[in-house]
Amino acid sequence: MIFEGSEKKAEIILNKEHQGLLSKKDSFWEQLVTKANASILSKIENSVVKAFLLSESSLFVWEDRILLITCGQTTLIDAIKFFVKELGQDCINQIIFQRKNEYFSHLQPTTFYDDIERLQEDFDGVALRMGNIDDHHNFIYHLKRDYTPNTTDHTFEFLIYEICGEARSFLMQEGLTSIQVREFLKLDRILPGFTIDDFVFKPYGYSLNAINGDNYLTIHITPQQVSPYVSFETDIDIREHIPTLIDIFQPGSYDFIEFQPDRENSCGKQRPQQYELKTEVESFLSCGYKMYFSHYYKKRKDKLKPFQLL
Amino acid sequence: MIFEGSEKKAEIILNKEHQGLLSKKDSFWEQLVTKANASILSKIENSVVKAFLLSESSLFVWEDRILLITCGQTTLIDAIKFFVKELGQDCINQIIFQRKNEYFSHLQPTTFYDDIERLQEDFDGVALRMGNIDDHHNFIYHLKRDYTPNTTDHTFEFLIYEICGEARSFLMQEGLTSIQVREFLKLDRILPGFTIDDFVFKPYGYSLNAINGDNYLTIHITPQQVSPYVSFETDIDIREHIPTLIDIFQPGSYDFIEFQPDRENSCGKQRPQQYELKTEVESFLSCGYKMYFSHYYKKRKDKLKPFQLL
Repeated sequence: MIFEGSEKKAEIILNKEHQGLLSKKDSFWEQLVTKANASILSKIENSVVKAFLLSESSLFVWEDRILLITCGQTTLIDAIKFFVKELGQDCINQIIFQRKNEYFSHLQPTTFYDDIERLQEDFDGVALRMGNIDDHHNFIYHLKRDYTPNTTDHTFEFLIYEICGEARSFLMQEGLTSIQVREFLKLDRILPGFTIDDFVFKPYGYSLNAINGDNYLTIHITPQQVSPYVSFETDIDIREHIPTLIDIFQPGSYDFIEFQPDRENSCGKQRPQQYELKTEVESFLSCGYKMYFSHYYKKRKDKLKPFQLL
Repeated sequence: MIFEGSEKKAEIILNKEHQGLLSKKDSFWEQLVTKANASILSKIENSVVKAFLLSESSLFVWEDRILLITCGQTTLIDAIKFFVKELGQDCINQIIFQRKNEYFSHLQPTTFYDDIERLQEDFDGVALRMGNIDDHHNFIYHLKRDYTPNTTDHTFEFLIYEICGEARSFLMQEGLTSIQVREFLKLDRILPGFTIDDFVFKPYGYSLNAINGDNYLTIHITPQQVSPYVSFETDIDIREHIPTLIDIFQPGSYDFIEFQPDRENSCGKQRPQQYELKTEVESFLSCGYKMYFSHYYKKRKDKLKPFQLL
């Protein structure tokens, strides 16, 4: 079974005079995610954030912004269009739309190029490719509008490819429970004090949302052998936990991405042993963040064997 | 303008009792390439091989086999199906079908997975992916039949990505002539004694076929900035010329592939300075060749800048 784990992601931030997203009913968010061909599985919340676990990834809602992450064959762009239409263009302060290069892009209903064409119907934006076309890369689109992020608004994405056979076997075992996965991921170390909502998919897959005050972390795992993939996306500093996660998954390669609100600060300071830094791309985006994309791979001593398709 | 330079390639070998391909009329080959959505631009020949330069790459015809290479949005698989139908399945000794991972696969009419499904309607084959899904890789399909290649039947593919700005500018200049490209590529060193047929495409692109006895070499260049690409495919040992070609194109990365008829011989012995060997995949194929796939990239000191799309 082929499943595209790589996510599409949108952060939509409202103008100060048009906030109040927390008072929206869940039925509105259900409508929103339906537009993307996803559905809501469950919800956790506190006084500042609601976190919806979806059939394909996650939706987070704060008073002034949403973060929608969807994987598989979802049409996230339709959810953005719906949101903008429902709230009105005047409410929108900034849209940041991001998409990883896919490995089964022929199965996707749209490409990034299609998506930004649709955003350009309503907005005027900038679109960049972070990384060479023949390498791991990330596409990013944002509106051509000044935006000054909060000084604590620091985002980390840690995307893991080709996870080791041992981790795959563990994650593909029958009857796997979410408690087992939490232990496997050593989440007590990474997420002390967080409220957690997670789900083990059948036949395979695991998703987790975690919140603590206005902080969040979300994990999505696709263990299938044809394209094993795990993603972490969070606004807590995940760098210190990367060695632990590398140890658990022993990935063939990974991407590490940062959105840094202070352009003077440096990005990407982590480098586990045995991994080679292949690519670094950095750019100060006119929407106020420094974006940093990097790709690492595990040095191999031996030649690989082919992957048998037939 | 987006153009997928990466090629699809098929080698079809006839049984000993069913040879005689050189006596086929050109109109037959025109029909064949039309099935793939390509057309014949020109031809060179000697007593043992005909080489057709196509609107999308090349066709070589020997008495007992053909080699068809097509790029862009061609449907090479339709040409294989046509060939098999016209000659009859009984004539076919071996089919080796190869496809590089593409970077604009959403624009392709079919995927490798679709293609091999169509081959399996008539044949029983093996399909492999040489390389991880998130890395440069090559797909290969061949029939489950014993085949013993000629001891001199050694094939090299040298595929160059992200060629340098200087080379791109040279190759995209207005009024570029094929003589200029031959000089730029230093072909007098690589191809002494070869008969050459080449073509400069408008607005951009260059293709070359060269033959000498039953040896061949073909070059295809897509210099466009969105995905610059150059391919060399030949049965002459191109390894000694790789440093020269690296010097000319200064690529960001390249793949080097070998089909080696002697399983005891080693493959891939080349390693230009400044380039890091990232991937090596090797397998002895049951169709009689050792296949070797490798991917190299240029070590960079500086961070990359993003590529602006909008």
